[in-house]
Amino acid sequence: MRKPLILVSNDDGITSRGIRALVETMHQIGKVVVVAPNSPQSGMGHAITIGDTLRLDPSIAFETEGIEAYECSGTPADCVKLAKHHVLKDRRPDLVVSGINHGSNSSISVLYSGTMSAAIEGAIEGLPSIGFSLCDYSLTADFSHCLEHVKKIALQVLESGLPENLALNVNIPAKSQGEIKGIRICRQARAKYTEKFEKRKDPYGRSYFWMAGDFVDLDQGEDTDIWALANGYISVVPCGFDLTAHHALPVLNRLPFNG
Amino acid sequence: MRKPLILVSNDDGITSRGIRALVETMHQIGKVVVVAPNSPQSGMGHAITIGDTLRLDPSIAFETEGIEAYECSGTPADCVKLAKHHVLKDRRPDLVVSGINHGSNSSISVLYSGTMSAAIEGAIEGLPSIGFSLCDYSLTADFSHCLEHVKKIALQVLESGLPENLALNVNIPAKSQGEIKGIRICRQARAKYTEKFEKRKDPYGRSYFWMAGDFVDLDQGEDTDIWALANGYISVVPCGFDLTAHHALPVLNRLPFNG
Repeated sequence: MRKPLILVSNDDGITSRGIRALVETMHQIGKVVVVAPNSPQSGMGHAITIGDTLRLDPSIAFETEGIEAYECSGTPADCVKLAKHHVLKDRRPDLVVSGINHGSNSSISVLYSGTMSAAIEGAIEGLPSIGFSLCDYSLTADFSHCLEHVKKIALQVLESGLPENLALNVNIPAKSQGEIKGIRICRQARAKYTEKFEKRKDPYGRSYFWMAGDFVDLDQGEDTDIWALANGYISVVPCGFDLTAHHALPVLNRLPFNG
Repeated sequence: MRKPLILVSNDDGITSRGIRALVETMHQIGKVVVVAPNSPQSGMGHAITIGDTLRLDPSIAFETEGIEAYECSGTPADCVKLAKHHVLKDRRPDLVVSGINHGSNSSISVLYSGTMSAAIEGAIEGLPSIGFSLCDYSLTADFSHCLEHVKKIALQVLESGLPENLALNVNIPAKSQGEIKGIRICRQARAKYTEKFEKRKDPYGRSYFWMAGDFVDLDQGEDTDIWALANGYISVVPCGFDLTAHHALPVLNRLPFNG
């Protein structure tokens, strides 16, 4: 049987510990091609590079393992676009995986997530796509406890495929939370960040800010990603890219915009 | 009656022609505060600045009109966060408007749109929010034909409010398309970009790329934003930020992820 072709990207950059864990795990189940940012791109959301040039160069990051890899000057979404339309122009990936992110991308964080933008870009291209995130922001995060689950989820998606027009947003409890209880299919919890901007003076006397947000959970449901993670489960949210708030169409149609 | 407080942002930067047209129009109906990027931020999607500092300085961009304005080193989403939690900490805006973007943000472009990320950030904050885009990418685009419609839509939203958890994505046909026929409430058309990457050599012999996408409409519906714009209407799509593909939850629950 032909080995499945697996495209790996991320947003923490090609030298991060998280993508190494993901590449090594995917290497066990398929032929891996890596196209990832050459620098950290956290919080890039679904940014793409327009009006500027892109670099894409072969990378030595996974040379000892003999894995084909490229590093890109652009965003995670750029990486997947370059992979699909240039690097893999004549090869169709069976799976796109992104991560493993250093830090949660559950709930509202999915909007700001470079990890998930790579996965959603894969879904837009019609490819089964998964973003993986570990709820541990440390650069030295321990990914060992989650790799069997990452592998199982990837194998399941390779076997059964996914419904069209969505990517899976998979978040995994930190190792410090104890044993993982299982996998829950969830909806995105309603939540927001309440930002606190810390104002400082630079050495030249000019002010600048650090953004420091407090996460505010607005949801009491037990079917959300936040609930699953807080209770020791891996959360799996199917994320679409039709932003239309369909329920609001009749409400808006009753307003006299044309009046 | 107290004048409504209107926060204006955009992604083309505080010196663009589009934000000037929007500020001047909003100035006719309320008290305007501008917090906008100090440089173009097109294609930034819902990026935010984490792990780096932010600058926010008073701007002279609208000084002659006596309008309070700030320019920010960050993304459109950063601008709205800084506006809400710092500049307008003790003042609650009645309306957040973003744009007018130089170029369409209809259909799938909404994902990549800095204009809409500012509006959606407003909606996350619980504020009635609208992103305006003109289907004309030119830096010298003519906004004159759309200002009466922009004003009417803003007044309608100020009067009636909006359903929770959404922002309006308003796209307006270019002046060259002829007279505007009216306003249509729409859903986001299914579409994608098929990227063509043009490879070039720099003067040092290293290769680089330009991304050049072709827009591919995958939708035949007459209730989409693409249809409305092609037929001379202003499209209004309510855009949410719950990405959950709710219809897929039962499908995924039937897969043996825990097996």
